[in-house]
Amino acid sequence: SSSSSSSTSAKLASDASKVLCRGTGLSKAVVGQKNNFTVDCSKAGTNMLMVGVHGPHAPCEEVYVKHMGNKLYNVTYAVKDKGSYTVIVKWGDDNVPGSPFKVAVP
Amino acid sequence: SSSSSSSTSAKLASDASKVLCRGTGLSKAVVGQKNNFTVDCSKAGTNMLMVGVHGPHAPCEEVYVKHMGNKLYNVTYAVKDKGSYTVIVKWGDDNVPGSPFKVAVP
Repeated sequence: SSSSSSSTSAKLASDASKVLCRGTGLSKAVVGQKNNFTVDCSKAGTNMLMVGVHGPHAPCEEVYVKHMGNKLYNVTYAVKDKGSYTVIVKWGDDNVPGSPFKVAVP
Repeated sequence: SSSSSSSTSAKLASDASKVLCRGTGLSKAVVGQKNNFTVDCSKAGTNMLMVGVHGPHAPCEEVYVKHMGNKLYNVTYAVKDKGSYTVIVKWGDDNVPGSPFKVAVP
Protein backbone atom coordinates (compact mmCIF):
# COMPACT_ATOMS: atom_id res chain seq x y z
CA SER A 1 0.00 0.00 0.00
CA SER A 2 1.14 3.55 -0.55
CA SER A 3 2.61 5.29 2.44
CA SER A 4 2.26 8.80 3.74
CA SER A 5 5.98 9.24 4.26
CA SER A 6 7.39 12.73 4.33
CA SER A 7 9.31 14.16 1.40
CA THR A 8 12.55 13.82 3.35
CA SER A 9 12.23 10.11 3.94
CA ALA A 10 11.07 9.65 0.36
CA LYS A 11 14.30 11.23 -0.88
CA LEU A 12 16.43 9.00 1.36
CA ALA A 13 14.70 5.83 0.23
CA SER A 14 16.63 3.71 -2.24
CA ASP A 15 15.00 2.30 -5.36
CA ALA A 16 17.36 0.46 -7.70
CA SER A 17 14.59 0.14 -10.28
CA LYS A 18 14.92 3.89 -10.92
CA VAL A 19 18.56 3.65 -11.99
CA LEU A 20 19.19 4.20 -15.71
CA CYS A 21 22.25 2.74 -17.48
CA ARG A 22 23.16 3.87 -20.97
CA GLY A 23 26.02 3.37 -23.38
CA THR A 24 27.63 1.00 -25.84
CA GLY A 25 29.87 -0.38 -23.08
CA LEU A 26 26.83 -2.24 -21.74
CA SER A 27 26.67 -4.48 -24.79
CA LYS A 28 29.97 -4.30 -26.64
CA ALA A 29 33.59 -3.66 -25.72
CA VAL A 30 36.87 -3.54 -27.59
CA VAL A 31 40.32 -4.70 -26.52
CA GLY A 32 42.76 -1.80 -26.25
CA GLN A 33 40.09 0.88 -26.03
CA LYS A 34 38.34 2.61 -23.19
CA ASN A 35 34.79 1.26 -22.99
CA ASN A 36 32.15 3.46 -21.43
CA PHE A 37 28.66 3.68 -20.03
CA THR A 38 26.80 6.04 -17.76
CA VAL A 39 24.73 5.28 -14.69
CA ASP A 40 22.07 7.81 -13.70
CA CYS A 41 21.03 7.30 -10.07
CA SER A 42 19.52 10.76 -9.65
CA LYS A 43 15.98 9.37 -9.23
CA ALA A 44 16.98 6.31 -7.20
CA GLY A 45 17.34 7.80 -3.74
CA THR A 46 20.43 7.40 -1.57
CA ASN A 47 22.69 4.39 -1.83
CA MET A 48 26.13 3.27 -2.96
CA LEU A 49 26.96 2.41 -6.57
CA MET A 50 28.80 -0.89 -6.99
CA VAL A 51 30.24 -1.91 -10.35
CA GLY A 52 31.98 -5.16 -11.25
CA VAL A 53 33.29 -6.45 -14.57
CA HIS A 54 34.52 -9.96 -15.25
CA GLY A 55 35.83 -11.56 -18.41
CA PRO A 56 35.64 -15.07 -19.84
CA HIS A 57 38.78 -16.20 -18.02
CA ALA A 58 39.92 -13.44 -15.69
CA PRO A 59 38.82 -10.23 -13.99
CA CYS A 60 38.53 -7.04 -15.96
CA GLU A 61 41.85 -5.24 -16.24
CA GLU A 62 40.57 -1.96 -14.83
CA VAL A 63 37.31 -0.31 -13.88
CA TYR A 64 37.03 3.42 -13.26
CA VAL A 65 33.91 4.97 -11.76
CA LYS A 66 33.70 8.76 -11.84
CA HIS A 67 30.95 10.72 -10.12
CA MET A 68 29.95 13.60 -12.39
CA GLY A 69 27.61 15.15 -9.84
CA ASN A 70 23.94 14.70 -8.96
CA LYS A 71 24.41 10.91 -8.76
CA LEU A 72 25.34 10.66 -12.43
CA TYR A 73 28.31 8.36 -12.91
CA ASN A 74 30.62 7.64 -15.81
CA VAL A 75 32.07 4.14 -15.89
CA THR A 76 35.14 3.34 -18.00
CA TYR A 77 36.70 -0.08 -18.23
CA ALA A 78 39.45 -1.88 -20.13
CA VAL A 79 39.39 -5.47 -21.31
CA LYS A 80 42.27 -7.73 -22.26
CA ASP A 81 40.59 -10.85 -23.63
CA LYS A 82 38.08 -11.50 -26.38
CA GLY A 83 34.91 -13.31 -25.45
CA SER A 84 31.89 -12.77 -23.25
CA TYR A 85 32.11 -10.36 -20.33
CA THR A 86 29.68 -9.76 -17.50
CA VAL A 87 29.05 -6.27 -16.15
CA ILE A 88 27.20 -6.03 -12.85
CA VAL A 89 25.77 -2.71 -11.68
CA LYS A 90 24.21 -2.56 -8.24
CA TRP A 91 22.62 0.25 -6.28
CA GLY A 92 23.42 -0.96 -2.82
CA ASP A 93 22.56 -4.66 -2.70
CA ASP A 94 20.16 -4.58 -5.65
CA ASN A 95 20.86 -5.07 -9.33
CA VAL A 96 19.74 -2.13 -11.45
CA PRO A 97 17.50 -2.75 -14.49
CA GLY A 98 19.40 -4.74 -17.11
CA SER A 99 22.09 -5.99 -14.72
CA PRO A 100 23.92 -8.30 -15.11
CA PHE A 101 24.78 -7.05 -18.60
CA LYS A 102 26.34 -9.44 -21.10
CA VAL A 103 29.07 -7.70 -23.08
CA ALA A 104 30.62 -9.14 -26.22
CA VAL A 105 34.29 -8.49 -26.95
CA PRO A 106 34.76 -9.53 -30.60
CA SER B 1 22.40 -33.64 -14.96
CA SER B 2 25.24 -31.32 -14.14
CA SER B 3 26.63 -31.63 -17.65
CA SER B 4 23.57 -29.89 -19.07
CA SER B 5 23.67 -26.89 -16.70
CA SER B 6 24.26 -23.50 -18.24
CA SER B 7 27.37 -21.50 -17.48
CA THR B 8 25.31 -19.03 -15.47
CA SER B 9 23.98 -21.71 -13.16
CA ALA B 10 27.37 -23.32 -12.69
CA LYS B 11 28.68 -22.26 -9.28
CA LEU B 12 32.39 -21.93 -8.90
CA ALA B 13 33.89 -22.03 -5.43
CA SER B 14 33.96 -18.64 -3.77
CA ASP B 15 34.91 -17.78 -0.20
CA ALA B 16 34.82 -14.08 0.67
CA SER B 17 36.31 -14.82 4.09
CA LYS B 18 39.61 -15.59 2.34
CA VAL B 19 39.92 -12.09 0.85
CA LEU B 20 42.64 -9.89 2.39
CA CYS B 21 42.44 -6.09 2.29
CA ARG B 22 45.45 -3.99 3.21
CA GLY B 23 46.42 -0.33 3.11
CA THR B 24 46.02 3.03 4.78
CA GLY B 25 43.11 3.85 2.48
CA LEU B 26 40.98 1.45 4.52
CA SER B 27 41.13 3.70 7.59
CA LYS B 28 42.25 7.17 6.52
CA ALA B 29 41.97 9.29 3.40
CA VAL B 30 43.09 12.77 2.41
CA VAL B 31 41.33 15.34 0.23
CA GLY B 32 43.33 16.07 -2.92
CA GLN B 33 45.42 12.91 -2.78
CA LYS B 34 45.07 9.46 -4.27
CA ASN B 35 44.09 7.08 -1.47
CA ASN B 36 44.97 3.42 -1.90
CA PHE B 37 44.46 -0.08 -0.67
CA THR B 38 44.98 -3.56 -2.07
CA VAL B 39 42.57 -6.48 -2.21
CA ASP B 40 44.06 -9.96 -2.44
CA CYS B 41 41.45 -12.44 -3.69
CA SER B 42 43.97 -15.07 -4.77
CA LYS B 43 42.79 -17.58 -2.13
CA ALA B 44 39.08 -16.74 -2.39
CA GLY B 45 38.06 -18.76 -5.42
CA THR B 46 36.26 -17.30 -8.41
CA ASN B 47 33.96 -14.31 -8.12
CA MET B 48 33.64 -10.65 -9.01
CA LEU B 49 35.16 -7.85 -6.94
CA MET B 50 32.75 -5.02 -6.14
CA VAL B 51 33.97 -1.81 -4.52
CA GLY B 52 31.91 1.16 -3.41
CA VAL B 53 32.89 4.34 -1.59
CA HIS B 54 30.51 6.90 -0.15
CA GLY B 55 31.16 10.13 1.73
CA PRO B 56 29.31 11.94 4.49
CA HIS B 57 27.14 13.88 2.04
CA ALA B 58 27.79 12.60 -1.45
CA PRO B 59 29.31 9.72 -3.43
CA CYS B 60 33.04 9.36 -3.72
CA GLU B 61 34.47 11.47 -6.55
CA GLU B 62 36.20 8.57 -8.26
CA VAL B 63 37.06 4.95 -7.63
CA TYR B 64 39.61 3.09 -9.74
CA VAL B 65 40.04 -0.68 -9.49
CA LYS B 66 43.07 -2.15 -11.26
CA HIS B 67 43.67 -5.88 -11.58
CA MET B 68 47.38 -6.53 -11.05
CA GLY B 69 47.13 -10.22 -11.93
CA ASN B 70 46.43 -13.39 -9.93
CA LYS B 71 43.31 -11.76 -8.41
CA LEU B 72 45.34 -9.07 -6.68
CA TYR B 73 43.70 -5.67 -7.06
CA ASN B 74 44.84 -2.13 -6.41
CA VAL B 75 42.06 0.29 -5.48
CA THR B 76 42.59 4.04 -5.72
CA TYR B 77 39.98 6.61 -4.79
CA ALA B 78 39.62 10.36 -4.45
CA VAL B 79 37.54 12.21 -1.87
CA LYS B 80 36.21 15.73 -1.97
CA ASP B 81 34.72 16.26 1.49
CA LYS B 82 36.04 15.94 5.01
CA GLY B 83 34.21 13.61 7.35
CA SER B 84 33.41 9.94 7.65
CA TYR B 85 33.47 7.77 4.55
CA THR B 86 32.31 4.20 4.08
CA VAL B 87 34.24 1.77 1.89
CA ILE B 88 32.48 -1.45 0.95
CA VAL B 89 34.41 -4.34 -0.55
CA LYS B 90 32.46 -7.37 -1.70
CA TRP B 91 33.51 -10.61 -3.31
CA GLY B 92 30.36 -11.32 -5.27
CA ASP B 93 27.45 -10.74 -2.90
CA ASP B 94 29.47 -11.14 0.28
CA ASN B 95 31.34 -8.54 2.31
CA VAL B 96 35.01 -9.39 2.75
CA PRO B 97 36.54 -9.38 6.26
CA GLY B 98 36.50 -5.83 7.68
CA SER B 99 33.91 -4.49 5.21
CA PRO B 100 32.27 -2.05 5.49
CA PHE B 101 35.36 -0.03 6.38
CA LYS B 102 34.96 3.33 8.11
CA VAL B 103 37.42 5.85 6.71
CA ALA B 104 38.16 9.19 8.35
CA VAL B 105 38.95 12.20 6.17
CA PRO B 106 40.40 14.81 8.57
